[in-house]
Amino acid sequence: MTGTATAAIIGGGVIGGGWAARFLLNGWDVNVYDLDPEAERKIGEVITNARRSLPALSDVSIPTEGQLQFASSVKDAVQDADWIQESVPERLDIKHRTFADIQAGCRPGALIGSSTSGFKPSELQQGAARPEEIFVAHPFNPVYLLPFVEIVGSTGTVERARDILDALGMKPLIVRKEIDAHIADRFLEAVWREALWLVKDNIATTEEIDDAIRFGFGLRWAQMGLFETYRIAGGEAGMKHFIAQFGPYLSAPWTKLTDVPELTEDLIEAIAAQSDDQSGDYTFRELERFRDDNLVAMMRALKPRNWGAGALLNAHDEKYRPPLPNDITAPLGTLHRVIPIDWTDYNGHMNESRYGQVFSDAGDVVMAMVGADADYIASGLSYFTVDNHIRFMAETNAGDEIRVRTQVLEAQGKKLRMYHEMMRMDGVLLATCNQLLIHVSLETRRSCEPEGEILKKINALGEAQGKLPRPESMG
Amino acid sequence: MTGTATAAIIGGGVIGGGWAARFLLNGWDVNVYDLDPEAERKIGEVITNARRSLPALSDVSIPTEGQLQFASSVKDAVQDADWIQESVPERLDIKHRTFADIQAGCRPGALIGSSTSGFKPSELQQGAARPEEIFVAHPFNPVYLLPFVEIVGSTGTVERARDILDALGMKPLIVRKEIDAHIADRFLEAVWREALWLVKDNIATTEEIDDAIRFGFGLRWAQMGLFETYRIAGGEAGMKHFIAQFGPYLSAPWTKLTDVPELTEDLIEAIAAQSDDQSGDYTFRELERFRDDNLVAMMRALKPRNWGAGALLNAHDEKYRPPLPNDITAPLGTLHRVIPIDWTDYNGHMNESRYGQVFSDAGDVVMAMVGADADYIASGLSYFTVDNHIRFMAETNAGDEIRVRTQVLEAQGKKLRMYHEMMRMDGVLLATCNQLLIHVSLETRRSCEPEGEILKKINALGEAQGKLPRPESMG
Repeated sequence: MTGTATAAIIGGGVIGGGWAARFLLNGWDVNVYDLDPEAERKIGEVITNARRSLPALSDVSIPTEGQLQFASSVKDAVQDADWIQESVPERLDIKHRTFADIQAGCRPGALIGSSTSGFKPSELQQGAARPEEIFVAHPFNPVYLLPFVEIVGSTGTVERARDILDALGMKPLIVRKEIDAHIADRFLEAVWREALWLVKDNIATTEEIDDAIRFGFGLRWAQMGLFETYRIAGGEAGMKHFIAQFGPYLSAPWTKLTDVPELTEDLIEAIAAQSDDQSGDYTFRELERFRDDNLVAMMRALKPRNWGAGALLNAHDEKYRPPLPNDITAPLGTLHRVIPIDWTDYNGHMNESRYGQVFSDAGDVVMAMVGADADYIASGLSYFTVDNHIRFMAETNAGDEIRVRTQVLEAQGKKLRMYHEMMRMDGVLLATCNQLLIHVSLETRRSCEPEGEILKKINALGEAQGKLPRPESMG
Repeated sequence: MTGTATAAIIGGGVIGGGWAARFLLNGWDVNVYDLDPEAERKIGEVITNARRSLPALSDVSIPTEGQLQFASSVKDAVQDADWIQESVPERLDIKHRTFADIQAGCRPGALIGSSTSGFKPSELQQGAARPEEIFVAHPFNPVYLLPFVEIVGSTGTVERARDILDALGMKPLIVRKEIDAHIADRFLEAVWREALWLVKDNIATTEEIDDAIRFGFGLRWAQMGLFETYRIAGGEAGMKHFIAQFGPYLSAPWTKLTDVPELTEDLIEAIAAQSDDQSGDYTFRELERFRDDNLVAMMRALKPRNWGAGALLNAHDEKYRPPLPNDITAPLGTLHRVIPIDWTDYNGHMNESRYGQVFSDAGDVVMAMVGADADYIASGLSYFTVDNHIRFMAETNAGDEIRVRTQVLEAQGKKLRMYHEMMRMDGVLLATCNQLLIHVSLETRRSCEPEGEILKKINALGEAQGKLPRPESMG
């Protein structure tokens, strides 16, 4: 469906804008409808933030962005849409009116997701023309980066929704029973209630509470949840031992959650003032960019571990790996990517070693093109780089879109020499790399010839490209 | 105090072992006392895990590990100790007896921290000889990686404790009022209660709950806490707007927290079985290593952002930056570090581009030695690498301890050429790099001479080392 599908975003704001960005940057056309005369500016700002972070999650080849349009009515927005996402204010009467407008204009069978935090699908569907089309698709801010989405609704509908969210690189969970606030927001609400008490009782400030989270259990929860973490805490004796040990505290006075604090003016003032002390040096747009940069860096850090959000990103990358072209007589387009924030220093300049990373990745793409992929490596054979000569021509920054063009200079038996040129999209040459690789057995750690089919392909590349003129930049 | 100080760990286990590793790997001598005849094996396993992760957080120079000893009595363990950490079972009578033994044997004025999750210092201090020495120092598992510690106790004591924890690279928070379960465990307890209800009511499995956490709000909380996250959600209107919007849900039936589920046999069985389905393919030791690798990779990902746990690690690194030696006629010892997990592929082999990272870091150390440090760069001057020739001699793996020796081949005006050799501790040469740098103005982006004092120092290095024999590996 990618590339030709259309999403309608009804209700802009932070969540609607995040959905728009998620669809758009995955190649969908997007129609937005919002009553707010400022919607275009606001959604534009969200998409600008998304452009500087979401594409940088990919290490292979990025999809072509879809078309963004602002519609003047719900009907215009939804008529051609495959997916319609409602993110209007959290009031049931407003949602019901919106669904009526949507279903009057959309194709029967379209998917109509609601971003509601609290309402159950049975509540959303009340009075609808085709209730089964309406379901909960509750995402997390920033929608363009955080993968998790809760889906609640009718059988048939939720499976179709899940497949589309999968294709968008998200992590959909079909919730098996409808319940107020679905799953995740129940936890957030519990933590929020406890946090309000701690501030109200002057036990901790907002900053102290945030530090308790981000220097402690928050770090844990970015990669394993509650149960897997506690399974480890149970040690050799496991989960039952942990429950036996921790269980008795259920009756201890460890939280104030059996009661709810009153949101007095004083309490609200105290929270707002503490939050200013903590974060007031930055605008919310700056904080948003810090958050996005941190999320991108952490999620990318999980990619080589192939764990959690990193495993999800790897699976998504696989969909975009370029194949060996039919015509191999021209240099190969090996990479088309965005410089991610974790490749740069604090000032956003790409670290010199990451030029090497780009060329190493480009080499890996050639390997994959001829069949020397992850499975091949798992079978005990691989190429090792023995010599790299990099020349640095121009600086590169986080967010820059680059391409790498690779020429196979020499491929004979176990020896493979490639020349990579890394370019900005405007054609400016950023760096070059003359790379010598030797094919090895991972078992003996000694050089050997590649396996038959791969040897044939790599030799063909060497023959086709070795006699091409040397790239100008080789001098 | 680092290097000569002694910590006594009373009570091994996961938490005591974690404390032992944290002290030991920061250069403290550590005495352990535990009744368990298996304590030595168990603590040994925790320290083995710590050795493969904690040192890898550093990018500069790692401290020399202290001496680990197992004592046959509390008295033997504590008599020379500067810091005594109690991590015995969570029963007040056991803790009181332990404190009596400790204070009978330790120096007056020693710091006596308790790892208790739930007890308040006033409870711990009951009947103590010198109550003010006893305080809460509540850490988070794994103690050798997660920085957060809650400190609760008497004025004077808690400040001394905070300074030592700072020096251990931790993030201590002095809690201003004592309260059951301090701060962080109140949140954990709230989430745990809600999670038990969701499993009991068959809304979600343990794996679904974990996914809801680690693909959603868990990722957010690893870098910003609850309040900073919601400040952003409030957008231009800020924190008050957020509270106004979210506040009404306090009275909504969004959690079951007003009640506590009963831990029946059936519920415990259900949780244990679901946890087996979710994580049963791995032993808890394997899960522990996955967790540690993920934490190391994510915390390190925050270093270039200088944010949260990453900023803390950077500040810790600064304490270990090697100075310019008095005798500059021999090649410089520029790096002594451990290959971190985030520099390696899924099989633990160091990515080829990270050889370039090592040499880039070694170059940065030389820069810092002559005064071209972060402040210098902030002033608008820096060195840019223009040519790098790396030769790869041997493979390197996560956890390998390496050194880099750097010879300044040529330093004249704006031109600087260095030769780096990267070695394993057994002397095996892993790779070499011939690196050419040019001094530039960050304003004009053009080459220029370094500022006076730095020019003098770098020229002196060039004169002293340029005429040394070329390293053998240059051939």
